[in-house]
Amino acid sequence: MAAAAILPELATQVVIPVAAAVGIAFAVLQWVLVSKVRLSPERRGEGGAGSGKSGPSDYLIEEEEGLNDHNVVATCAEIQNAISEGATSFLLTEYKYVGLFMSIFAILIFLFLGSVEGFSTKSQPCHYSKDKTCKPALANAIFSTIAFVLGAVTSLVSGFLGMKIATYANARTTLEARKGVGKAFITAFRSGAVMGFLLAASGLLVLYIAINLFGIYYGDDWEGLFEAITGYGLGGSSMALFGRVGGGIYTKAADVGADLVGKVERNIPEDDPRNPAVIADNVGDNVGDIAGMGSDLFGSYAESSCAALVVASISSFGINHEFTPMVYPLLVSSVGIIACLITTLFATDFFEIKAVDEIEPALKKQLIISTAVMTIGIALISWLGLPYTFTIFNFGAQKTVQSWQLFLCVSVGLWAGLIIGFVTEYYTSNAYSPVQDVADSCRTGAATNVIFGLALGYKSVIIPIFAIAFSIFLSFSLAAMYGVAVAALGMLSTIATGLAIDAYGPISDNAGGIAEMAGMSHRIRERTDALDAAGNTTAAIGKGFAIGSAALVSLALFGAFVSRAAISTVDVLTPKVFIGLIVGAMLPYWFSAMTMKSVGSAALKMVEEVRRQFNTIPGLMEGTTKPDYATCVKISTDASIKEMIPPGALVMLTPLIVGILFGVETLSGVLAGALVSGVQIAISASNTGGAWDNAKKYIEAGASEHARTLGPKGSDPHKAAVIGDTIGDPLKDTSGPSLNILIKLMAVESLVFAPFFATHGGILFKLF
Amino acid sequence: MAAAAILPELATQVVIPVAAAVGIAFAVLQWVLVSKVRLSPERRGEGGAGSGKSGPSDYLIEEEEGLNDHNVVATCAEIQNAISEGATSFLLTEYKYVGLFMSIFAILIFLFLGSVEGFSTKSQPCHYSKDKTCKPALANAIFSTIAFVLGAVTSLVSGFLGMKIATYANARTTLEARKGVGKAFITAFRSGAVMGFLLAASGLLVLYIAINLFGIYYGDDWEGLFEAITGYGLGGSSMALFGRVGGGIYTKAADVGADLVGKVERNIPEDDPRNPAVIADNVGDNVGDIAGMGSDLFGSYAESSCAALVVASISSFGINHEFTPMVYPLLVSSVGIIACLITTLFATDFFEIKAVDEIEPALKKQLIISTAVMTIGIALISWLGLPYTFTIFNFGAQKTVQSWQLFLCVSVGLWAGLIIGFVTEYYTSNAYSPVQDVADSCRTGAATNVIFGLALGYKSVIIPIFAIAFSIFLSFSLAAMYGVAVAALGMLSTIATGLAIDAYGPISDNAGGIAEMAGMSHRIRERTDALDAAGNTTAAIGKGFAIGSAALVSLALFGAFVSRAAISTVDVLTPKVFIGLIVGAMLPYWFSAMTMKSVGSAALKMVEEVRRQFNTIPGLMEGTTKPDYATCVKISTDASIKEMIPPGALVMLTPLIVGILFGVETLSGVLAGALVSGVQIAISASNTGGAWDNAKKYIEAGASEHARTLGPKGSDPHKAAVIGDTIGDPLKDTSGPSLNILIKLMAVESLVFAPFFATHGGILFKLF
Repeated sequence: MAAAAILPELATQVVIPVAAAVGIAFAVLQWVLVSKVRLSPERRGEGGAGSGKSGPSDYLIEEEEGLNDHNVVATCAEIQNAISEGATSFLLTEYKYVGLFMSIFAILIFLFLGSVEGFSTKSQPCHYSKDKTCKPALANAIFSTIAFVLGAVTSLVSGFLGMKIATYANARTTLEARKGVGKAFITAFRSGAVMGFLLAASGLLVLYIAINLFGIYYGDDWEGLFEAITGYGLGGSSMALFGRVGGGIYTKAADVGADLVGKVERNIPEDDPRNPAVIADNVGDNVGDIAGMGSDLFGSYAESSCAALVVASISSFGINHEFTPMVYPLLVSSVGIIACLITTLFATDFFEIKAVDEIEPALKKQLIISTAVMTIGIALISWLGLPYTFTIFNFGAQKTVQSWQLFLCVSVGLWAGLIIGFVTEYYTSNAYSPVQDVADSCRTGAATNVIFGLALGYKSVIIPIFAIAFSIFLSFSLAAMYGVAVAALGMLSTIATGLAIDAYGPISDNAGGIAEMAGMSHRIRERTDALDAAGNTTAAIGKGFAIGSAALVSLALFGAFVSRAAISTVDVLTPKVFIGLIVGAMLPYWFSAMTMKSVGSAALKMVEEVRRQFNTIPGLMEGTTKPDYATCVKISTDASIKEMIPPGALVMLTPLIVGILFGVETLSGVLAGALVSGVQIAISASNTGGAWDNAKKYIEAGASEHARTLGPKGSDPHKAAVIGDTIGDPLKDTSGPSLNILIKLMAVESLVFAPFFATHGGILFKLF
Repeated sequence: MAAAAILPELATQVVIPVAAAVGIAFAVLQWVLVSKVRLSPERRGEGGAGSGKSGPSDYLIEEEEGLNDHNVVATCAEIQNAISEGATSFLLTEYKYVGLFMSIFAILIFLFLGSVEGFSTKSQPCHYSKDKTCKPALANAIFSTIAFVLGAVTSLVSGFLGMKIATYANARTTLEARKGVGKAFITAFRSGAVMGFLLAASGLLVLYIAINLFGIYYGDDWEGLFEAITGYGLGGSSMALFGRVGGGIYTKAADVGADLVGKVERNIPEDDPRNPAVIADNVGDNVGDIAGMGSDLFGSYAESSCAALVVASISSFGINHEFTPMVYPLLVSSVGIIACLITTLFATDFFEIKAVDEIEPALKKQLIISTAVMTIGIALISWLGLPYTFTIFNFGAQKTVQSWQLFLCVSVGLWAGLIIGFVTEYYTSNAYSPVQDVADSCRTGAATNVIFGLALGYKSVIIPIFAIAFSIFLSFSLAAMYGVAVAALGMLSTIATGLAIDAYGPISDNAGGIAEMAGMSHRIRERTDALDAAGNTTAAIGKGFAIGSAALVSLALFGAFVSRAAISTVDVLTPKVFIGLIVGAMLPYWFSAMTMKSVGSAALKMVEEVRRQFNTIPGLMEGTTKPDYATCVKISTDASIKEMIPPGALVMLTPLIVGILFGVETLSGVLAGALVSGVQIAISASNTGGAWDNAKKYIEAGASEHARTLGPKGSDPHKAAVIGDTIGDPLKDTSGPSLNILIKLMAVESLVFAPFFATHGGILFKLF
């Protein structure tokens, strides 16, 4: 038909692993740079008073007033150690359950997919090209299972390392804050970058290796190869279930538990070392916002790649065995790593932060720069990596597409992400009128605050949905479901920068907590607070991003599922589909009710333990005895794992039950319904929570004339704002973001099990 | 094909108007019975001290302790007069705007529909049966416009009369409460029945007459006739926009405004006559729950009838000109009136309420009895009114259906309504654990109360959605969109009883307010409170009913629209439809954000006026001067009309804009998205609000050991409960129920404009 891509296969085989290796090397470099901040020689030891003589010399040239440095450093090291141990203990406990769950699920995948052709080892005619011969369903079962495990393990290892570096960096950020806000910023940001690049690069590398290794067996059967590869997305996404839902419950149980007894009953400040739950609370920030967000975005990344690959395999790329355009999604990600690398240098090397008010613009510039650089990168790789004309599978037919159209698809996703991010910021930052109006409504009490906050969240849905709808329309019209998948990939192509900014937040937050606990001066706390405030805003942006990409990814997966299940239309005007649609739209409500209740139950257990410690440990309130931090960490860990079972079961079982009993049409309805309804609740819940949080901070900071009329801390409007903030906590950190998992995981699970459902599903309708 | 219906056309032509006439006669009879309660001779006069000599004799035989009867009666009459005048003043103001709106919209309908064939007066080939000749599009334009006006006027007149009887009955209920709770119950219930029967019967009668009159012109062209009749549904539904949205804003603006100044700032009790907004508050109960709910249900009733008729006209009934089965929907409604009449006698004549705890069971029995009786009625009329076999239009094809299958369709809707009602009760009544848990969560403050309340609302969606999904699946599978339409009609067939119970609530509520304001004894207030408490529970049931029927009606209208727009599939897997779906799912959030903000703005205006009166009118707090009630009524009226414009515009313009710019496929997506998403928010908002209200009442009543540990009034848990109740007010009485209008009105508007969109719509796609 048309000429092949400019980039030859060999070059492609070099470019992808090299880009991934560069990403990993860059992550290691950042880690090395962070580790140069010395945290006393015995930082991994007994945690007693420091005796470090050689280390301190390079940071003693400080601008801060005289402090007993040895003690401060030792205390910081000790606290960091406790947080790090708590985080590791949570992760190790979680991994035990993850291991159990993944093993069972891997067996299920194998059995379900293997049974499609009765575990036959005979090759079969291909699903889409009936004249060719494809590998047996049993091979698909085996390789899907392997891919599933690979996806889960990659997400797990990246998350674990990201959390390690985060808890390794928080005290270092605190100490650097003594030298000035710029130094502290760079430390926190570099640590975030480790997580970002590690995850993006290893995700790409493992996927690349898997394709090549699986390819040895599959040979020319690309249809089978890339169908098996979808297991990778399911693995990454299943891990995200634990990260987002389990992590979300953990972080809010610890937070609410610590606050209810500490702040309310005992009247001690936040981050007070006497509070037994204080370490659990700090661990929670890492668990929720670093491991949780990381696994969520990793899942989206893996899923959108898989969705694009599976559609490409039955398009002209796959049919003609053109390797370079076939792995176009991986090339986009490769370019993304390089674009993000360049972007990072703008924050760490090209410019220097000198004042507090430069932090937030610097972070926002990261987003804009990465988007701009990436747009050029996409143009380049679309020109080099794609033939000028090709065809894309479109629900039974083939659609002719040009390379510049695919450039548009990827770019529209990329830029839509930016728009969603900035709209989210507008509705959740206290620099703009929406949050200020919510703060103002606190004058008439908590009730009006809640009503205004809910209304704000509802309103904040409008523009993001139009942005998503426009991206979908453009990419869908130009290149069918492949277009939607690469649009999602476009939104996620700057994942390294996105995650760096995102992980930066909890690191700064923890740094502030450590400064407080170590009894450091007011000025240090002010600096870390400034870092943290900027992190709050960017965290909201990150959440908007995560939801937007989840919506696109789910649609792409949905499209791939429908293709694989051999449905050519999903007609709302059939009872099977319509009931799926309305029940699917209900699932996010059911799921949210569960996750909100989970936080409540887990927090209650924490409250009881904290109360018990205050009542039974003598000298705790006086600060002469240390609380038992580890028990609180254990309670949060156990409760979060236990409480995630019902919502987790709802997500995992729904596609199986619906697919087996009602078949693929109803399941299509459920997926579409859950997608269009869930994305709204996710956005509104996150933004409502973010707005309440920042309305409270607005009153507390008292930075404007208007804010001062509402404050100070302890005034009636402030009390009303605190109530809103507490309500918002589970909404923005647990139930809202967990919905991403609901809509994505159900879709990818349906895709992986599609061959089974298509063969054996819909028992109920077959019976009647 | 098969034999005709047993019931001949002539009999049908007798049965329907007779049933309607019986309904109207019964309503009049109830009115007469209520009016026997004398309210002093000069009740419509100056309102001074009573001089009635002849009247009182029949009610002086009272069980109540000695009271200065003449004064009490006079005061009651005076208050009732003020409420009645306030309500009338609101309605008359509203009607001015309604008139303006309806005129403009009527012209729009005429122009849009007339332009389909360029205002040609030539007959055209029929849309569905191309070999026949149908009346020109111009006729459709003219008769649709007339039907539209008829629907609006019928709803308006019924609502006006219902409100008149309600405000005529409230003081009578107060006075009857002196004779005992049973007498008061009967008075309130009979008054509610007037509204219920009047609305059901006049809705049926006008529709019947319109069909016959239009038929004179249309002759054999039933396709055109029933297409024009759909204007009736649009008219009823447009009126509901004013009733539900305008009324909803009115009632909560008055309520919140009265409470914020009266209870919070001035520390005077609820319903205190010194509060200038107290009359507006009482008017609001009538405006929102009587006129609003009435117009909402009337709209549903008119729409489901029209949806069924339009589908029937292109099914075998219409093609073969079989009159009796053609008007089967009207026959179902006729039987419904008789069934409800029998049911009412169980409440007013067959049994007598003797104790307070018999009220709620008596009301619930009404629902069960009417459902049971109606099931028999449906069986009968399906046997008599339908041929054994017939065909139903099913998106381009004809589907063979048997009469017993249609019986199942109507019945499944009827019983699903009952299930939804009782599930709603379970989640909102404080007799069960969900509300008790919410009340218990007030221990840890307002934040946990809000979180638990929101989670309860989300959870309460599950069973109703399954009930709706099951009804849709069964009726859709058996008889396509006609099945869904008659299922909706089944749910609404007991509308007379449903409305009677619903209107009973605000009448009892007002009766309590009047007792308080007239300074009557504690025992009277206790009796009216008992009536009111039962009314709260049944109000929640009524709301559940209204939402459930709205969902079914919208789907039926959607189906009719799709048929008329000549779309045979609405495929989610096309970009046009999918973007409609996701944007449609967003609309309920946008709409809710608007209505919630409207309540806030309107309440603020009320607060200012009440404050002004307290500050500027000397002697007001001391009770020596009377406040200026009328200004408060006027403020609520003006504010509610003004504030309903943005949400109203969103509802009315969306179908027009989407249809004209994007065409019928995208519009289909929008309708489906708004339906599946809106129904969830509507249910959860109503139930969350209801649960908070009753959690507060649970603590206040202190009827159990558990409740007493949370109380008494003024305790911290109670304060937290009050915050929840205030948040719930706009959710349950404004934003939640208004969503019914959003989903129904968009669907019926699309249906009426379908010929225009099909011809001239989708400009944007035609251009590019």
